[in-house]
Amino acid sequence: MKSLINDPLHVINIGVEDFARTIAKTGGACTHVAWRPSAGIPAALRATLTSSRDAIQAANQEALKRLQQAKPVLIDMGIARDMIPGMQDRLLLHSGPPIAWERMCGPMRGAMIGAVLYEGHAKSEEEARSLLESGHYDFAPCHHHQTVGPMAGVVSASMPVFVVENQTFGNKAFCTQNEGLGKVLRYGAYSDEVVKRLKWMEATLYPALQRAIQASGGIDLKNMIAQALHMGDEVHNRNRAGTSLFLRAITPWLVRTAESTETAAEIIEFINGNDHFFLNLSMPASKSSLDPARGIANSSMVVAMARNGTDYGIQLAGTGDEWFTGAALVPDALFFAGYTKEDANPDIGDSSITETAGLGGFAIAAAPAIVQFVGGSAQDALNYSLEMYEIAIGENGVFQIPALDFRGTPTGINAIDVVQKGILPILDTGVAHKDAGVGQVGAGVVNAPMDPFVKAVQGLLTTLNTND
Amino acid sequence: MKSLINDPLHVINIGVEDFARTIAKTGGACTHVAWRPSAGIPAALRATLTSSRDAIQAANQEALKRLQQAKPVLIDMGIARDMIPGMQDRLLLHSGPPIAWERMCGPMRGAMIGAVLYEGHAKSEEEARSLLESGHYDFAPCHHHQTVGPMAGVVSASMPVFVVENQTFGNKAFCTQNEGLGKVLRYGAYSDEVVKRLKWMEATLYPALQRAIQASGGIDLKNMIAQALHMGDEVHNRNRAGTSLFLRAITPWLVRTAESTETAAEIIEFINGNDHFFLNLSMPASKSSLDPARGIANSSMVVAMARNGTDYGIQLAGTGDEWFTGAALVPDALFFAGYTKEDANPDIGDSSITETAGLGGFAIAAAPAIVQFVGGSAQDALNYSLEMYEIAIGENGVFQIPALDFRGTPTGINAIDVVQKGILPILDTGVAHKDAGVGQVGAGVVNAPMDPFVKAVQGLLTTLNTND
Repeated sequence: MKSLINDPLHVINIGVEDFARTIAKTGGACTHVAWRPSAGIPAALRATLTSSRDAIQAANQEALKRLQQAKPVLIDMGIARDMIPGMQDRLLLHSGPPIAWERMCGPMRGAMIGAVLYEGHAKSEEEARSLLESGHYDFAPCHHHQTVGPMAGVVSASMPVFVVENQTFGNKAFCTQNEGLGKVLRYGAYSDEVVKRLKWMEATLYPALQRAIQASGGIDLKNMIAQALHMGDEVHNRNRAGTSLFLRAITPWLVRTAESTETAAEIIEFINGNDHFFLNLSMPASKSSLDPARGIANSSMVVAMARNGTDYGIQLAGTGDEWFTGAALVPDALFFAGYTKEDANPDIGDSSITETAGLGGFAIAAAPAIVQFVGGSAQDALNYSLEMYEIAIGENGVFQIPALDFRGTPTGINAIDVVQKGILPILDTGVAHKDAGVGQVGAGVVNAPMDPFVKAVQGLLTTLNTND
Repeated sequence: MKSLINDPLHVINIGVEDFARTIAKTGGACTHVAWRPSAGIPAALRATLTSSRDAIQAANQEALKRLQQAKPVLIDMGIARDMIPGMQDRLLLHSGPPIAWERMCGPMRGAMIGAVLYEGHAKSEEEARSLLESGHYDFAPCHHHQTVGPMAGVVSASMPVFVVENQTFGNKAFCTQNEGLGKVLRYGAYSDEVVKRLKWMEATLYPALQRAIQASGGIDLKNMIAQALHMGDEVHNRNRAGTSLFLRAITPWLVRTAESTETAAEIIEFINGNDHFFLNLSMPASKSSLDPARGIANSSMVVAMARNGTDYGIQLAGTGDEWFTGAALVPDALFFAGYTKEDANPDIGDSSITETAGLGGFAIAAAPAIVQFVGGSAQDALNYSLEMYEIAIGENGVFQIPALDFRGTPTGINAIDVVQKGILPILDTGVAHKDAGVGQVGAGVVNAPMDPFVKAVQGLLTTLNTND
């Protein structure tokens, strides 16, 4: 007791870091332990969790195995109305979980307006807006139609899509072509320039790329992603290597099959001018890799994380088609000149399918340039990935992180670990302006919210309880 | 004294690591300090070194500044006889410092035979060999003709070369096109297959690439190398990103200017099939960046390191055209199946110009895949680069290492630091079979020998002594 009063104090602070900062400010010695309490599984379900531990683990191993065995190959392209199951002229797909027009955020409404103008269903923004408000269209998540879309993720019937086949299981996934940066539909812009580019992508880019992909006999996206991770990409916010490797693979076929050499040159320059082109291939690669894990009873593995700019939704392998949602968060980002966090829309897009598959933020140690962009160090990038191993069911055998001695990326998110350990998935993301028609205002990293994971685990455990 | 006898001993071992290992083997506690003695500047010259310290430092800062200001751009191609100053039909260039036929190693002799067959000066290996032995040809280092060549580095009059201009200073450097892997001239192979490929490169690859480069208006190699370092290359033994970025830049122009689409496709596929293609651009980029630092009195900055497979030679900014040489070492390598260190030729090639310019082994922390290839860890790669800062005059402002928080690469080797600190430059390298006609047998890392650095510093100090 005497020594406690007379000797210098060294405080160990567990949990809220602010207390440690206050002690440090006054010159005191303090070691901070970054512990977070479990997000809380209701007492009524804890017994189920304990009694079902073996069944959940076995189911998660099966889900992980299917994800690991995936072999996504880019096999073709086509027009959405012909390729996407259930696609119709009056159906507009969007990113994230289901949402009605009334609750859609600005950039998603902007992209919807752009899609209506692109389809020629309206001649002006006003006309498009009133059609969209009138109930003329059905809205559905891309995920309900084997599709994924970056940011607003709006897909209409005339848009060309990539066709990616998981050749281990035979299932397919679809995604539009990436438009580049600046004023683009996926960030909610819908000016003439946006629609004109989409028309060029339909009339010129698509037929040439389709012929080249068909002539190539298919492009192995798993191998290409693995190489890109060795070349500084995490294939979500950084796709420079993926885009380069895709160009290397497709260009000979593009040249051989293009209508003219000038068309071939123009297309190569368009893709060369857009380092994000590969994102729209890494996304359907991830989607097609995860879908075979759907419907595995008892599995708490996440098979989709998606944001519509209002809600953040997740789906588990063991809970069928049910979405578990919470409010989407505003990303910590580097904002472009003239913009602040006040301008930012909450997190939006299906691109978090990459993190769901063990890429993106989970593989950020392979792409320290992304962390540097928002003021972090290479060590921060390593730490982000290392923390994700805590909530991952396993590691990928093919996707590796060079800076971690080529360790496989943390793969297969266990929603129960997220809740019990209080560790949230980290996502790389672009940031859209909150108003329709503006476009991108920044890029950064963001955590998933905890709510959807708590609800999903409760949903899974309720199912298990009922099964007992 | 009593405590020395009774307490457990903890030994601190400085220098030779074997002593520490012996203590550790017997269960003793030992901390090893990796210290090496200075390689020895003769007592007679030490006073000169001390009195000239400021002059040397100022000269080295000037040399470094010129290296940092370099702006290498690929501006054209041409045939060696028309482009390389002093090139003649009976002149054969080779890598490394000067060497006579009698002292040439197997792979260099093989490449010389191949060049004579390629030029059509002989019809058989025997005929070529007797021409080469007869004194019919002059031999000279590539470096004496503003040229660099990987491995054997043999350049004959009809070979097409890249023209790289350092646009800050107006000087040029030249290099042949990379042939790919397997049976290739630069590794000493000279079979029909080798000569046939060289003929295709002259007749098909070269004219198409030349037109494309001219149409492009020039390709900024400094920017491309900077990007490649962010994508897992160190642009010596790993050039996958550089090759990808070069293809992205050149393909639109290649397509627009090629004789036929099939020719364009064939050329893209050749380059796509050879991840080392960019090496023959990073080398002349490095050479043209270093040459303006030649002839700066008092400077101990290395402006060339080059090996001919027998001797390892270096040149300093402050010692004119003099070569300081020592025996080339056999690399620590991963050998291809069926080969061992017994088969390996000593270190060969001008490609160490990349390390001289702060790339290659100096930037190996950007390319951990190379270290993993020979059994090392990502941390080993960091350590190699970190050690090179000890002998570098400064850091590059454009070439950065992501894993070191985008720190500039260690740039401008100070030969005095090499000698005084006992730290040798580390080089990434390919390994040739010691016999003519076989080809590559492995790849790995190798230290420069100490001899040339000791001689070079002595040479520089003698000059300084005379000037006093």
